[in-house]
Amino acid sequence: MLRKIMLVGAGKSTSYLIDYLLKKSDEEKLQLTIGDINPKSIDKEIKTHPNCEVIALDIFNDEDLITSIKDSDIVISMLPARFHLMVAKVCLDFKKHLVTASYVSPEIMAMDKKVKQSGLIFMNEIGLDPGIDHMSAMKIIDSIRHKGGKMLLFESFCGGLVAPEHDNNLWNYKFTWNPRNVVLAGQGGTAKFIQEGTYKYIPYHRLFRRTEYFEIEGFGRFEGYANRDSLNYREAYGLQDALTIYRGTMRRVGFSKAWNIFVQLGATDDSYTLENSENMSYREFINLFLPYSPTDSVELKLRHYLKIEQDDIVWDKLLELNLFDQDKRINIPNATPAQALQKILEDKWTLQEVEKDMIVMYHKFGFELNGEKKQIDAKLVVIGKDRKFTAMAKTVGLPVAIATIQILNKKITSPGVQIPITKEVYEPILQELEEMGINFKEYEVPYLGYNPDSVMS
Amino acid sequence: MLRKIMLVGAGKSTSYLIDYLLKKSDEEKLQLTIGDINPKSIDKEIKTHPNCEVIALDIFNDEDLITSIKDSDIVISMLPARFHLMVAKVCLDFKKHLVTASYVSPEIMAMDKKVKQSGLIFMNEIGLDPGIDHMSAMKIIDSIRHKGGKMLLFESFCGGLVAPEHDNNLWNYKFTWNPRNVVLAGQGGTAKFIQEGTYKYIPYHRLFRRTEYFEIEGFGRFEGYANRDSLNYREAYGLQDALTIYRGTMRRVGFSKAWNIFVQLGATDDSYTLENSENMSYREFINLFLPYSPTDSVELKLRHYLKIEQDDIVWDKLLELNLFDQDKRINIPNATPAQALQKILEDKWTLQEVEKDMIVMYHKFGFELNGEKKQIDAKLVVIGKDRKFTAMAKTVGLPVAIATIQILNKKITSPGVQIPITKEVYEPILQELEEMGINFKEYEVPYLGYNPDSVMS
Repeated sequence: MLRKIMLVGAGKSTSYLIDYLLKKSDEEKLQLTIGDINPKSIDKEIKTHPNCEVIALDIFNDEDLITSIKDSDIVISMLPARFHLMVAKVCLDFKKHLVTASYVSPEIMAMDKKVKQSGLIFMNEIGLDPGIDHMSAMKIIDSIRHKGGKMLLFESFCGGLVAPEHDNNLWNYKFTWNPRNVVLAGQGGTAKFIQEGTYKYIPYHRLFRRTEYFEIEGFGRFEGYANRDSLNYREAYGLQDALTIYRGTMRRVGFSKAWNIFVQLGATDDSYTLENSENMSYREFINLFLPYSPTDSVELKLRHYLKIEQDDIVWDKLLELNLFDQDKRINIPNATPAQALQKILEDKWTLQEVEKDMIVMYHKFGFELNGEKKQIDAKLVVIGKDRKFTAMAKTVGLPVAIATIQILNKKITSPGVQIPITKEVYEPILQELEEMGINFKEYEVPYLGYNPDSVMS
Repeated sequence: MLRKIMLVGAGKSTSYLIDYLLKKSDEEKLQLTIGDINPKSIDKEIKTHPNCEVIALDIFNDEDLITSIKDSDIVISMLPARFHLMVAKVCLDFKKHLVTASYVSPEIMAMDKKVKQSGLIFMNEIGLDPGIDHMSAMKIIDSIRHKGGKMLLFESFCGGLVAPEHDNNLWNYKFTWNPRNVVLAGQGGTAKFIQEGTYKYIPYHRLFRRTEYFEIEGFGRFEGYANRDSLNYREAYGLQDALTIYRGTMRRVGFSKAWNIFVQLGATDDSYTLENSENMSYREFINLFLPYSPTDSVELKLRHYLKIEQDDIVWDKLLELNLFDQDKRINIPNATPAQALQKILEDKWTLQEVEKDMIVMYHKFGFELNGEKKQIDAKLVVIGKDRKFTAMAKTVGLPVAIATIQILNKKITSPGVQIPITKEVYEPILQELEEMGINFKEYEVPYLGYNPDSVMS
């Protein structure tokens, strides 16, 4: 009997997801329906695939949403995170499993009891980050515990970057997913983590000056800044006694120092709209955040305001963005500063059709085993194929796709609103990901604790 | 016939207000009722005054609130601003005039139509700032316009400080009103103003590094940082064509640079609670915001993090607060950083019983008259008597008291939700304030525009 999969939303991150499901569709007896607000944008080879149907779907039309879901066996929501709740409610009403790559919202968490009572699986956070990070971390943590080890330290970093062969701007960065999320990264609350037993808090305006450094063999150096939520998974991972828990975002070294200029100016603010933004030049935009002067240039005011020395490379990074251009216009009415900045960045940071992206992930596990302190570092690099088949789409989409089939095949059976941290879930998925080129390299290294300067070694 | 005044809330800023009303009570035939949640704290000479009654009043008890208001002729609310709405609703239901010293909330503004229909006056923002600032500014703006002048620039600054004779700490600052508001000052949105026709935006984390300087004859130098809302009164004041509008808060020179240390650390954040705050030492509190190190001291980490040089006086300001003390404790469970910081500051910044506070206000008016650009500066200094009869209580309470009697005497008659910007309101009040020692000095000075360095002069 055919198993019907309803995929809601066919945006950027779904290329590998759809590709995988259709390739498996004969063998696994899958019938895929793709519902999107804009079905025209979906490729012809998908639309004409014998096991696939593409429909126009406006999720705000309740009746259409119900019709699309009620005959399926499982639903995948790849909508922006804020829309999952609408889908989840229909899934619960009509008793359908649900898979998403997004963080569990409190509203969806609150459905857990009813989801369990209905014997349903609502699998969330099963993309890249969150997703592969959970699974790969829990695999190593479980294996350390299995040997009798006690976790002391867990650090985890992930970043979506541009592949080395197309890494050709001074920021070493291009947009490989939602640019808006990149501009707003780190906002919405103080970063909180724990280092060697001491709680630490970093406000947004200092976040990009508190970076750490890493080396990935063959790929050079990276930096990481703290995520807002390092302690969110402390209980889920069973790390209540760990002295250090730190989660962060990876960039190439030097990105954060330059990005901090925008943060300091207030140019990443999304909480108010600018007067006259539509006709504003890039130069005028920057001048909004600098003191008035009847004589001094925007350039000199900015150098003075943020104490940028004349030979500092960050200046070239600003010039590369045409930040002081008098003619280029924001062209967005009632833009927030963040929207205006995004426009400026998109001029220069858009991945070209043939360009490849790169995913990097870096875990550190510190533990005590048989009276000895040890450390394992686990590192992942995935390179994309082009602007459509990105490493981002691969690492987000494949875990979603594999989990969907595992649920259909009753290999994943525990009901409830969940994230992929149990062996039942992560083991088969990580194994299949490995076969598809998504595999971590593990290194045993001396245990340093949280000690970036190695002063105690 | 006796006129009944109901005063709701008898906190810090009401000493002069009550004193004034009781002194006028025979002459003006006033019967004052004071309702407070804690009537015990009210002085005996007030309680025993023949024209005064003191009652226990819990404003959350609807029946009691209605009983207290329904027999009065006019109501004064000196509650914290968030509670005015409850009082305003009862005033509207029972057709009573209302006077407050707080900003008009959108909810109270929305009552305007009904207030007008009932022929009532809801007079708000009639304290110091907002209050005396509106009245004194509008008096000069109206007189400039009356002569045919065109407003080019309006800047207005106000501060509650300590009187020179008790100005004996390195911060030149003591708490003379709600300490919590001082710790949170500047939060809740980007500062917005206009300078020489250009909009300017300052994010909170830069606010205390964008100060201006002033001299007040006989009182030395002051600095000012921007308020959040400089453009709020642009229409109310009729300044739509003015090139520069800037409103700010005054401190002694050097305060903002030192305060910025707390802002940079994130120690003024009120959006989350700290783990283990109750037993936390002052030193541990500061260390929360600094990078972990197995060897370096909190002192060195802070100097390095915020680039504080060894001979910078700000360091002595921190030492004066015992910021690095290992034994002094926050002693507040589940404190936010802002609450913990407030505790540290209160140790040192509390006004002593005999100490005097000081109010300073500074307006600049730039205008064009008969083809010539001119400027008037208006400056106010008020010194308090002691910790009870503060300059703050005087400048907040007297305008409220005078307006109340003006409304009772039908000298103020225009109905509606309003602020004191019309001649009908400000003229008699400013005149009486002047008789009580609250008077501005005006100076004609060369017009510089917004040009702090005088480079064009």
